[in-house]
Amino acid sequence: MPASSLPVIRIAILGCGNVGAALVELLLDPAGADDLATRAGARLEIVGVAVSDASKPRPSAPHLAQELLTEDAAALVGRDDVDLVVELMGGLEPAGSLISSALSRGIPVVTGNKALLADRGLELGDLAAAHGTDLGFEAAVGGVVPVIRTLRESFAGEQITRVMGIVNGTTNFILSTMAERGSSYGEVLAEAQALGYAEADPTADVEGFDAAAKAAILARLAFGCPVPLDAVHREGITSVRDVDVAFARHLGFAVKLLAIAERVGDGEISARVHPTMVSIDHPLAAVGGAFNAVFIEGEASGPVMLYGQGAGGKPTASAVLGDIIDAARRRLSGTSAPTPISTMDRVPVGLDELRSAFYLSIDVADRPGVLAAVATAFGDNRISIRSMEQVGLGDEARLIFLTHAATERDMAATLAALDTVDAVDSVGGVLRVIGSDEEGF
Amino acid sequence: MPASSLPVIRIAILGCGNVGAALVELLLDPAGADDLATRAGARLEIVGVAVSDASKPRPSAPHLAQELLTEDAAALVGRDDVDLVVELMGGLEPAGSLISSALSRGIPVVTGNKALLADRGLELGDLAAAHGTDLGFEAAVGGVVPVIRTLRESFAGEQITRVMGIVNGTTNFILSTMAERGSSYGEVLAEAQALGYAEADPTADVEGFDAAAKAAILARLAFGCPVPLDAVHREGITSVRDVDVAFARHLGFAVKLLAIAERVGDGEISARVHPTMVSIDHPLAAVGGAFNAVFIEGEASGPVMLYGQGAGGKPTASAVLGDIIDAARRRLSGTSAPTPISTMDRVPVGLDELRSAFYLSIDVADRPGVLAAVATAFGDNRISIRSMEQVGLGDEARLIFLTHAATERDMAATLAALDTVDAVDSVGGVLRVIGSDEEGF
Repeated sequence: MPASSLPVIRIAILGCGNVGAALVELLLDPAGADDLATRAGARLEIVGVAVSDASKPRPSAPHLAQELLTEDAAALVGRDDVDLVVELMGGLEPAGSLISSALSRGIPVVTGNKALLADRGLELGDLAAAHGTDLGFEAAVGGVVPVIRTLRESFAGEQITRVMGIVNGTTNFILSTMAERGSSYGEVLAEAQALGYAEADPTADVEGFDAAAKAAILARLAFGCPVPLDAVHREGITSVRDVDVAFARHLGFAVKLLAIAERVGDGEISARVHPTMVSIDHPLAAVGGAFNAVFIEGEASGPVMLYGQGAGGKPTASAVLGDIIDAARRRLSGTSAPTPISTMDRVPVGLDELRSAFYLSIDVADRPGVLAAVATAFGDNRISIRSMEQVGLGDEARLIFLTHAATERDMAATLAALDTVDAVDSVGGVLRVIGSDEEGF
Repeated sequence: MPASSLPVIRIAILGCGNVGAALVELLLDPAGADDLATRAGARLEIVGVAVSDASKPRPSAPHLAQELLTEDAAALVGRDDVDLVVELMGGLEPAGSLISSALSRGIPVVTGNKALLADRGLELGDLAAAHGTDLGFEAAVGGVVPVIRTLRESFAGEQITRVMGIVNGTTNFILSTMAERGSSYGEVLAEAQALGYAEADPTADVEGFDAAAKAAILARLAFGCPVPLDAVHREGITSVRDVDVAFARHLGFAVKLLAIAERVGDGEISARVHPTMVSIDHPLAAVGGAFNAVFIEGEASGPVMLYGQGAGGKPTASAVLGDIIDAARRRLSGTSAPTPISTMDRVPVGLDELRSAFYLSIDVADRPGVLAAVATAFGDNRISIRSMEQVGLGDEARLIFLTHAATERDMAATLAALDTVDAVDSVGGVLRVIGSDEEGF
């Protein structure tokens, strides 16, 4: 049937920043409107856009009529004629209350709010299910990379063993550039800030808070259990040194900030974020710049990798639009959302028993017997050395170790022991290592 | 709630080959049954498995009770207590009739039957929609790679410009091995047959029939229009020579059999399968062995790549299981499937106006004036040369050309013109080229 005679789905949009403006243009641009309506099975009509300043010019949304703008988000969500709410304002509040209010009235919500989902995702999902509606959040992790739908639907029957990915474009840009140019973290951060790839206050990205929120969401979806943010072990990239990035490269590895959700035992999972040395043979090693990629491993499926732009207005708006059409189709067919994954009996645990190979860079005085003392610290703590290289530094020497797989507990004990070795000046870089094979190295 | 008190979904399985047996084990293995039931929100019970010989031993499905086997597929599908039909027998008939019969009674069907879907996918999808049920077919393209769900749902709002991928593991194994070892097509094919990676009659794979069926399915989903199999241009890998694979490598390219669905103009699309030279910078170039990967490009999304095992019992069964759980959840919540993508006003067209860069290998007599004659054939047909290398072969010379982007029509005219040049002995290899940038080269 012609697009003009299709039913109408009325959408309230909360927030009109980068992603919001791109979404508005995807919905309003006359060039694509008929195609979009045919695909969605409905005309997608914007009934209002809530913003903090309705008088501000919005050059990135030229098709947005001034009269659609409102500063009263609560009133917009509360309107009787709204079929669907899209939340793109970010932050915990008022976003959380507005979403709750819509879901409680059976109105589907689409959001990309990772902080809110990491904090209250399970509760909001349950609220949606209780009211026969759906909470879509594909855009919250990996931008346009369809990782949420893949975990919720395609892998719904899988015994997932691990989900790991590059989910923060800013840190991936910084680490990739450090590797390409041999530049220091500080230099590249300043450049990323000048280019607009990093915020003036980069804490959320470089300290791993953004990636940790995404790790919590991925872990919850992969393992069907609550994963509070404080159960996610978090290390950022601020202490990654250019010498370690260069040495990793020399050894055949790239340094990547990975978000990892992993099954570690019967009923136990681990969720964590840390810089990781990834073998250049591994597909994640090749993911450059602002791209995101998520690797999902299941017992029957084997590995699956999903890859695409992790940020940016248009790609993220594209992910939001996929969720909007899903919700619109359900709304039109009068159907509720499918039952979400039930909660399983699993708990996130700390790092102590986790095993991985490690990279260590240790600066020592260059004199006889030092290597023996260092090796004793490893051996006393059950850590077996895979390889060692020594680099001279004047009176000093730098020892670069790669270990076989060892537990975090044993590595912590080794580091404590090294601290008491007189000839050890400093342990500069410690990185976990992921190889291209299953054992980790 | 405990898994034992969950509702039951009764499944009829048609076919118990490689994928069927792996699926039976995923459903029946007691080690995973409770987890699976919790995730699905239902206990998934097999009511019968239709096979051609019920007395045959089935060592790959040790948990399958003999009394579940039947040789009467029609009677199994017709049973009143069946909630869901899984078709894994393959072929057009009786699979098509059995699926129609189930859908007509409102029973959801999950299938991995690419030949049937390429032939009758649109009709069967419409039949499902007309009866308020769903036809799941994630396993039909790319095995465990979630390309069907991504196209149907995540990219439902996208203006997709191109879908291209490696969707046949056998040919990818052969081409990858030719590149690694410098072996000929015939040698590697024989090895692939000995290893069980290629069939005794390899026609469906090596002549591109399997990939063409998948290209038709991808094109229909990406562009929402009917794409009959005979509208898919098809070239296999049987005429790919080891010298061309080696020369491609030398020039910085891998040779891959790609299935491509592309928007080529207003209301026109192209679906095709042919060996392609892919820049080693392109993510598809690194996809080795039996892996599959699909690259989806949309106007807002930019490029997205999905990657995983394209064949094999377990990974394919995992994709089938995702569809089963989707259908089970819908069945339980009493909801019909969402409206499928409506048909759009687009038609598949032939190759004539398509533009790409080309690789040509031309054997000529090694005497003065030959290059001028060859270059004239290109120039007369508006084809601009990007680079040329000459390799001596005794009295002969081999000229290796890379062209700038040109139409298929102009290339065909060039090849006809070269045929009339006296000094040209043969045009050995002609390959289309895809670079890492947008223009194609």
